[in-house]
Amino acid sequence: MKAITLTTDFGIGSPYVAAMKGVILSFFPECRLIDLTHDISPQRILQGAIVLHDVFDSFPEGTIHVAVVDPGVGTARKIVAAKMEGHYFVAPDNGLLSLIYQKAISPEIVRLTQDRYWRHPVSSTFHGRDIMAPVAAQLAKGIPLQSLGKTIEQPVRLRIPEVQIHADFITVTSLFHDSFGNVITNLRSDSLDPTWRSRMAPSRMVEWKREKKEPIPCRIVRTYGEADSGEAVGLIGSSGRLELAVVDGNAAQRFNIAPEETFRVQFVETNSST
Amino acid sequence: MKAITLTTDFGIGSPYVAAMKGVILSFFPECRLIDLTHDISPQRILQGAIVLHDVFDSFPEGTIHVAVVDPGVGTARKIVAAKMEGHYFVAPDNGLLSLIYQKAISPEIVRLTQDRYWRHPVSSTFHGRDIMAPVAAQLAKGIPLQSLGKTIEQPVRLRIPEVQIHADFITVTSLFHDSFGNVITNLRSDSLDPTWRSRMAPSRMVEWKREKKEPIPCRIVRTYGEADSGEAVGLIGSSGRLELAVVDGNAAQRFNIAPEETFRVQFVETNSST
Amino acid sequence: MKAITLTTDFGIGSPYVAAMKGVILSFFPECRLIDLTHDISPQRILQGAIVLHDVFDSFPEGTIHVAVVDPGVGTARKIVAAKMEGHYFVAPDNGLLSLIYQKAISPEIVRLTQDRYWRHPVSSTFHGRDIMAPVAAQLAKGIPLQSLGKTIEQPVRLRIPEVQIHADFITVTSLFHDSFGNVITNLRSDSLDPTWRSRMAPSRMVEWKREKKEPIPCRIVRTYGEADSGEAVGLIGSSGRLELAVVDGNAAQRFNIAPEETFRVQFVETNSST
Repeated sequence: MKAITLTTDFGIGSPYVAAMKGVILSFFPECRLIDLTHDISPQRILQGAIVLHDVFDSFPEGTIHVAVVDPGVGTARKIVAAKMEGHYFVAPDNGLLSLIYQKAISPEIVRLTQDRYWRHPVSSTFHGRDIMAPVAAQLAKGIPLQSLGKTIEQPVRLRIPEVQIHADFITVTSLFHDSFGNVITNLRSDSLDPTWRSRMAPSRMVEWKREKKEPIPCRIVRTYGEADSGEAVGLIGSSGRLELAVVDGNAAQRFNIAPEETFRVQFVETNSST
Repeated sequence: MKAITLTTDFGIGSPYVAAMKGVILSFFPECRLIDLTHDISPQRILQGAIVLHDVFDSFPEGTIHVAVVDPGVGTARKIVAAKMEGHYFVAPDNGLLSLIYQKAISPEIVRLTQDRYWRHPVSSTFHGRDIMAPVAAQLAKGIPLQSLGKTIEQPVRLRIPEVQIHADFITVTSLFHDSFGNVITNLRSDSLDPTWRSRMAPSRMVEWKREKKEPIPCRIVRTYGEADSGEAVGLIGSSGRLELAVVDGNAAQRFNIAPEETFRVQFVETNSST
Repeated sequence: MKAITLTTDFGIGSPYVAAMKGVILSFFPECRLIDLTHDISPQRILQGAIVLHDVFDSFPEGTIHVAVVDPGVGTARKIVAAKMEGHYFVAPDNGLLSLIYQKAISPEIVRLTQDRYWRHPVSSTFHGRDIMAPVAAQLAKGIPLQSLGKTIEQPVRLRIPEVQIHADFITVTSLFHDSFGNVITNLRSDSLDPTWRSRMAPSRMVEWKREKKEPIPCRIVRTYGEADSGEAVGLIGSSGRLELAVVDGNAAQRFNIAPEETFRVQFVETNSST
């Protein structure tokens, strides 16, 4: 039972998603179809790259992940299929797979060139339906990756904002907001050294400092239930990333946080924490 | 072909839903997955409890329903699995199953303790993915309920606002608004006695009276098509509950109705109805 | 492996969709279920008719499409099932299938009368769950169309705004906005004669003129990537229809475009295009 997941910026409820599913079923009626998300902000490749990276390995090995955040559709940009970490991926070659390339040991990446595996006629505005959906169905049916096109070594990679760990503070960047308004950052807990991990202990107070705006004081917690309603907290969320949240509220709105806003996260010495 | 439904407050389009589905498929690849809804208002356990209760028995017996509205995740709150009315349920023990407990004859309820059925490591913020999704998959595979943990007799139950039926009026409480802005109340038509049921006859005029706000006059109808565009109507909706609606409009917005607002529904004597 | 698609105006995230799915699975547990869209604006039959028409044939032949945009539920309006273009359809007889009737060669249409195929009791407000979902499941199981009711010849048809092609301009009507704010019109490229098709060439400038509002100048492009961010463009979109779009923006909002607004699309003579 092969499954194909779909990640797009088409918007929840878009019939274009259904068009892709119809095409997949036309090529391979037994295929399972799972929405990963269609709520990527329009054309925000970085957000798509992070969400796909953070969720794909919840699925069983052998799953095929199609991702369509494709502002360059119809231009000279390429389309790739890849095998990485036991999973398959089909996406425009615009950086949408960047975080998985970083993680993968010996990725196999091909540029799609074999148009006998596509749906015809190929429109100039919807390669998700006409190229990526059929190719995903072919992979689900067992067509080998290598037969879909030519191996490439240098796919497009996004510049991912980097965490900077200093003696006294960490520089983090907000990547996107989830549907609760929690602000997800680029700091993964597994990238911290033991000193910093012990500093990020429950009940420590930190300040998120930023340019030209008020700093945001908040308390480190392990889980939302440890804080009061309305309190601002920092915690390692379910994808292993540092998040800024407001309990029962919307942190992104309350603190007017932009995508890719940079913060200096600094510990505040208090009596209780010395 | 076992099916698992998912009810959460993650928001439509949340990739966290996909993470739960991926985990279920990892444990049991043949499982069918159906979204019941992900549009429960954040952390509104009562709304989740009502929606789950009103929809679960549209599904075939043997269906497994996972519900995650879980403000207490990571705290000492328990997680339960239950067999009721021929269906299975997995949810935090916070009242989310309250309305089904009320209805069920001899429910079997266990507190989840057998962590060999979970996904490891268990995060502190996402038990939906790490505990509830795997346990639902185990139930779908046929693992007996009793092997998942210890039987409990007193699960957490919410206080459900009660309808009060008086000689001249009924006191009802708004529970939530559906996506059309229809206001769904706690009054189920099957709880009315024959006298009141005959009073709730098409074309009768009622007033919804409330504290410190204008009363809302409306006409009882059997179906939206009996009223004019823009007219306020009361009717027994598809889940068997009294609803306040505006035809082609949004009743919740127009009358500024809060969740759990209490109304005195009173009949208006008119010439035509005497 | 039969598939049923669902198209409704229930709103994304509506539990009423899940109720329909539960009923379908109760009648036919092996059935595949695909959301076509639930984001049709409430009671906008024309929008539903267009979206269904534009997407249904992405699916394999034999697919069953259930569509519920049903302002007349509970009134005397009929419900129909139809076989057209190798696909099956179940919908209220209110014009929702109009565009497919236009296209179909020898459609078979029956009015649903055989209530032994329905779910009982039949509510007065939710025929999607109680009549259309069960009938779709019966079709998926192989029950012949003719056994569901009586053949009819004159189903309800909507008046579809017509394109008018003049020597110097084309009159088009906006039908709806997609989730990017692109304005989808009634002009399909396959209805243009060769002269007009050659005029609609990339880089030509056109003006969208309308009553009592400023005309909208825009450039014809083949794909969004050919234009600059913020530029207004006209293009033939993925469903083969003329669209008005703003690259990286929302055309419907920027130009304050109403549903079913009529435009005179006129070419602008420029030096570069002579």
